[in-house]
Amino acid sequence: MKNIRGLAALAILTALAPLAAVAQLSGPLTIKEQGSFFVGGESKSVKQPATGLLPAQEGSITVNQMYVQYQIPMKGGHVPVVFVHGCCLSSKTWETTPDGRMGWSEYFVRRGYPVYLADQVSRARSGFDSSAFTAVRSGTLANASMPGILVGTHEFAWMVFRFGPKFGEAYPDEQFPVEAADELYKQMIPDLNQTLPANANPTWTQMAALGTRLKGAVLVGHSESGFFPERAALIDPQGIRGMITIETGCEAVPDDKLQVLARIPTLVMFGDHLGDVTKPFSWMDALNSCNAFVERLKKAGGDAEMMYLPALGIKGNSHMLMQDKNSNRLADMLVAWIDRHVERKGGGH
Amino acid sequence: MKNIRGLAALAILTALAPLAAVAQLSGPLTIKEQGSFFVGGESKSVKQPATGLLPAQEGSITVNQMYVQYQIPMKGGHVPVVFVHGCCLSSKTWETTPDGRMGWSEYFVRRGYPVYLADQVSRARSGFDSSAFTAVRSGTLANASMPGILVGTHEFAWMVFRFGPKFGEAYPDEQFPVEAADELYKQMIPDLNQTLPANANPTWTQMAALGTRLKGAVLVGHSESGFFPERAALIDPQGIRGMITIETGCEAVPDDKLQVLARIPTLVMFGDHLGDVTKPFSWMDALNSCNAFVERLKKAGGDAEMMYLPALGIKGNSHMLMQDKNSNRLADMLVAWIDRHVERKGGGH
Repeated sequence: MKNIRGLAALAILTALAPLAAVAQLSGPLTIKEQGSFFVGGESKSVKQPATGLLPAQEGSITVNQMYVQYQIPMKGGHVPVVFVHGCCLSSKTWETTPDGRMGWSEYFVRRGYPVYLADQVSRARSGFDSSAFTAVRSGTLANASMPGILVGTHEFAWMVFRFGPKFGEAYPDEQFPVEAADELYKQMIPDLNQTLPANANPTWTQMAALGTRLKGAVLVGHSESGFFPERAALIDPQGIRGMITIETGCEAVPDDKLQVLARIPTLVMFGDHLGDVTKPFSWMDALNSCNAFVERLKKAGGDAEMMYLPALGIKGNSHMLMQDKNSNRLADMLVAWIDRHVERKGGGH
Repeated sequence: MKNIRGLAALAILTALAPLAAVAQLSGPLTIKEQGSFFVGGESKSVKQPATGLLPAQEGSITVNQMYVQYQIPMKGGHVPVVFVHGCCLSSKTWETTPDGRMGWSEYFVRRGYPVYLADQVSRARSGFDSSAFTAVRSGTLANASMPGILVGTHEFAWMVFRFGPKFGEAYPDEQFPVEAADELYKQMIPDLNQTLPANANPTWTQMAALGTRLKGAVLVGHSESGFFPERAALIDPQGIRGMITIETGCEAVPDDKLQVLARIPTLVMFGDHLGDVTKPFSWMDALNSCNAFVERLKKAGGDAEMMYLPALGIKGNSHMLMQDKNSNRLADMLVAWIDRHVERKGGGH
């Protein structure tokens, strides 16, 4: 009788164990530490003409710094995860979803990972170097030399982020919460990356430095920043334990550099409806470039994986898959990959 | 003997009570809820020329939205506090201080207040309307019509933020952690407020709307935004239970409008060394304008208070008093004021 009771109790406990794990994913959240800081940044001399409140100034400003906001959960032991947003967006990408659900930033903390959100250099709280704009305004630089500012319209986002076949019409299986698209549009802010050198984006350098500062981290990039983890690793791989490349085109890295990347576990993830968008660029071409990248990494002895969601039976995901209705499920897939390929293997540098 | 033991135990408990309160101010932090959202925002039609990654687009963008990040502590009952940063800064102002201490954002959460950090409209994660810049670049708008971008140099900040008598030299009693000034400089980002209508800043509207959404809040402004709580109240006072105006010049509000403001408890705070800076503007003039404002509010029956810190025996505070070495002490003064003038009185609307 006692044994039977004991077994029954054990069965109940076993049944409850997954519930307990799930329970941590809602309700009060206890964090060990949180805050924000900057990585990098250099002084630059400027002559600033009088503008509004401020008088003419001659002196130094700081440029190229990267703002990082972080939360560290109570239970230690997991590798830190660094999230970097895409074009015309900020770290808001990873926070509360447009329809008000928990974003990946908090979800990963609740799953036990220290989470670091970086605003790209030249975006949001990282600021940007406004010197060229000021020079054009005062006539010391030709208008044509002014950096272009990237802006995505609602219509552009709907089509290219793969919400549906035409603006306002969703795909039948669409996972993006299209009823809350207006909230996504509020996240879309001017992209000033053209103020940065195209082949030496300081965000890559700061991502590598952040990995080193954290004594090892998984870097996650999305869209415009999708290949930034690899770019960071090519600058300094020592702090990069894993690279997660979401929804971007992969570059044809030369063989000698591929050797560096092949030492770091790599995951690429793509959503659905890739073939439905061919203008202004082809999502299928992006997928193919990343399939080729993954195959090259494998041939070079690397641990690389492509998660093309429709091929895994997960349908309807948009370009903004961290905001899609099944975002927690996708996060769980990343968590499982980090567990198997980074933490259990002790992978990366 | 038993009674004596009981009294001793009581004495120990009484002595420990303040320590228990202090203990919540470090160590693990449990929060009930956190996230981010936008207040306001309108659609605007644009013709965007092809720029870098993106093709030419004709469609809508969203402008004038205000990004808000929040944390709600476990223990309820306190009025929400909304913090809005100053010129050439972002909500980073209120987070981890330049020398790595806890900022007011977390400190107020630990003191039991729901905290809302707003990036001003046209700054950081709120984005900005880049149309005028793009129009200048493509030649459809004259250069002179391009909005000026405000930038503060290191040298400007040192002097005007009152770190010391000349760049690199601190006042003997300086409270700003000058050894970490480089970290403040990284927070200084281009200010695009000239893209907004000067007399109808959408940040004022969104602050008022945020107060209403929160069913009552204390609004805190600093420097450029120091008088924004009052500006918000003049648009819609219903959600504004208190106004805290830090380190700014106060406006000569017409009598009829003053009546609206006089119904809301108001606190003004200034640091030290005001008389040591006279260029490009006089801090003493700012203090005097606010003294006059407080006196007018009182005459109109308002509950208004000036906390001029040196007059209270608190010396050496800079313009960035939320980052000064005694920042927790100043936060405690705000908490005590909110307790007495907002919460106990049930003040405001």
